[in-house]
Amino acid sequence: MNIRKLPHIVIVGAGFGGMEVARNLKNAPVQITLIDRHNYHLFQPLLYQVAIAGLVPSQIAYPLRTIFRRQKNLTFQMGEVTSIDFESRYVKMDGSIIAYDHLILAVGGQTNFFGMSSVEQNGFQLKDIQSAVNTRNHLLKIFEDASREADAEKRRAMLTFVVVGGGPTGVETAGALAELITHVMAKDYPHMSLKEVRVLLLEAGNSVMPAYPEELRKATFDLLRSKKVEVMLNAKLTNYNGQRVTLANGETIATQTLIWTAGVRASEITDRLGVQQAGSGRVRTDAYLRIPSHPEVFVIGDAAYLENGNGQPLPMLSTVAIQQGKVTAQNIQKILKGQKPEPFHYKDPGLLATIGRNAAVARIWGLSFSGFIAWVIWVFLHIYRLIGFRNRLLVLINWAWEYLFYENQVRLITKE
Amino acid sequence: MNIRKLPHIVIVGAGFGGMEVARNLKNAPVQITLIDRHNYHLFQPLLYQVAIAGLVPSQIAYPLRTIFRRQKNLTFQMGEVTSIDFESRYVKMDGSIIAYDHLILAVGGQTNFFGMSSVEQNGFQLKDIQSAVNTRNHLLKIFEDASREADAEKRRAMLTFVVVGGGPTGVETAGALAELITHVMAKDYPHMSLKEVRVLLLEAGNSVMPAYPEELRKATFDLLRSKKVEVMLNAKLTNYNGQRVTLANGETIATQTLIWTAGVRASEITDRLGVQQAGSGRVRTDAYLRIPSHPEVFVIGDAAYLENGNGQPLPMLSTVAIQQGKVTAQNIQKILKGQKPEPFHYKDPGLLATIGRNAAVARIWGLSFSGFIAWVIWVFLHIYRLIGFRNRLLVLINWAWEYLFYENQVRLITKE
Repeated sequence: MNIRKLPHIVIVGAGFGGMEVARNLKNAPVQITLIDRHNYHLFQPLLYQVAIAGLVPSQIAYPLRTIFRRQKNLTFQMGEVTSIDFESRYVKMDGSIIAYDHLILAVGGQTNFFGMSSVEQNGFQLKDIQSAVNTRNHLLKIFEDASREADAEKRRAMLTFVVVGGGPTGVETAGALAELITHVMAKDYPHMSLKEVRVLLLEAGNSVMPAYPEELRKATFDLLRSKKVEVMLNAKLTNYNGQRVTLANGETIATQTLIWTAGVRASEITDRLGVQQAGSGRVRTDAYLRIPSHPEVFVIGDAAYLENGNGQPLPMLSTVAIQQGKVTAQNIQKILKGQKPEPFHYKDPGLLATIGRNAAVARIWGLSFSGFIAWVIWVFLHIYRLIGFRNRLLVLINWAWEYLFYENQVRLITKE
Repeated sequence: MNIRKLPHIVIVGAGFGGMEVARNLKNAPVQITLIDRHNYHLFQPLLYQVAIAGLVPSQIAYPLRTIFRRQKNLTFQMGEVTSIDFESRYVKMDGSIIAYDHLILAVGGQTNFFGMSSVEQNGFQLKDIQSAVNTRNHLLKIFEDASREADAEKRRAMLTFVVVGGGPTGVETAGALAELITHVMAKDYPHMSLKEVRVLLLEAGNSVMPAYPEELRKATFDLLRSKKVEVMLNAKLTNYNGQRVTLANGETIATQTLIWTAGVRASEITDRLGVQQAGSGRVRTDAYLRIPSHPEVFVIGDAAYLENGNGQPLPMLSTVAIQQGKVTAQNIQKILKGQKPEPFHYKDPGLLATIGRNAAVARIWGLSFSGFIAWVIWVFLHIYRLIGFRNRLLVLINWAWEYLFYENQVRLITKE
């Protein structure tokens, strides 16, 4: 097999979408280069568990070279793609140039602060391992600080935790944080009064989980309340100076912790490509997920903008990215054989979010579940999807332990 | 029980020594404050495993508040002790003042570069979680860099790894690093020639493991050789500029990785106490581990200087710190009852060091072991000593997995 003669497929980004393309081209007569800034694939849906000290990074990340060790037609390159030349068909990565025949941009998303630099500077986010570990360190450190703060007003501000965004990430983070405090911190800080602790979930719209059917929105709201999360609807944030949140109605909340989960946009590199963008920086594609002017370039996942049947943009979800990755791998093989590619149609597999250690809401097979049954479904689906048998086993032991003993293992403040 | 009337015991440092004092005072009529910079106890003997990506920090660290949750006479304070007033009997911690009746300084050790600032600046060390994670990130990153370096000379310098210090830490690190490369990196980088990789262990003296009997020094040397570690004896380092090691005999070695394990000294705070110090900054104590001029202040572990029967200083080992902690807890209780304290005598429990994944050398019960049997002893002793049942279980799974599949799980480059 002469490798130099095979078409060269370059995939930028090893998130859910990029991984799916790479795996589905395993037996194709192509040479693949997979590029990522990190040397691991990150299971992003569980990043909030790192922030609340429930899991450690190695349980939700797996080295890419190990994943693709047996895929002989793939080479991994760790590095940052800084620019792309669509005319000459190459990407620039850390100074070196990599030419392609087909390019897949699976560059993912990043936090969208909608221009609020005060929140970007003073708030916490859950976008990668580093930001999740920073959040964890801050949460644990502020309990240490509060434990020796004599001034009651200052102490209450330290023990007020604000999560912004009523979508799945915000709901999951607020629910898990409330449980960490009730079941673990209460034991670690026996002299501290839990009455001074508040977990607030701020949502700018009039409902949590806006994408979910009415009965699950209601169930989410009730579950959060039962876990002592204060849900504030129609609460639009305008400023956060690190000490005080200001809302659009003038109200203020004294807090040293704001976790922002209220916005995602396409990765910033999309702004520098000179291509047509839709809202949130997403790249407009044709029905085959290609850049119309450059049909050898595919864009998939959070970075791609495509509408579903009823004129709504496809959501920025891992399920969308995975389905797009699979179809793109098939379409590349069809194009290489001179066949016509298939347009992409999203099949909604349902919705699922967890609220603490024994409750969740789910919409699967046309049915709504909430409470413990939904939580069991959530646990099994997430563990099943985690890469690597040992990772699954360790996460399962961790969760079983936490479930039995209300214990969070990894409460280490590793760096400030 | 009126807590204010009980004698206040302040313990600075939650390493092996400080932990042992605290635990052995569990049922004593005292009030204890335990202070540490970190919120966890670190199982330092396995820190090198974090550096070679064999374990994650949470597997060798355990939150102090959880360890002491049931010990009602103990309060934990996270913070840095900046000074001590022996006359007025208080310690200063991050601006606040904590008065004591008895003080135990179990402040431990830190890396000793013997004034070689070039090594301190450009070398790696294994002194805490952060430095071990830094070392891990560097080791993994340099393989990524080497995999795309076309210049053979530069690539060889990238793939030359120098460990300095022929004591247990240096031997364990070099052995484990050599195995990581042979069994794991060789699979992750199939296009790289392992012939370009070198692991060197530099020792200034004329033998590795100088504290061990002759037959084990020989066994260590042979085991290292069988794992392709190049041992250089009588190799005294004079400079390391980040690119090149210079030895006293003028020889140079091109390398981008130097891990320094060749020196430990007492924690720097001992220099600011105005007390009599011996070599390596250690505080001279009386036979009861007290500062002669202030008999209510005990110094134990790496920070203490005491000689054994034959005029040799006690080694800086966890076994010494643990025995000293136990005796100190007993002596404090005796003093409080008006009884005479007991002088400290070290009982040598033997020596044990591992060389890679299936070999070790040990000197226990007057017998010498080497090879696989010693390794099995090492695994069981270390897992048994790890705090927390779940930690033991997770570490055991990790090691069993590695042993069966030659696999290192946690090869994540988390930050540069």
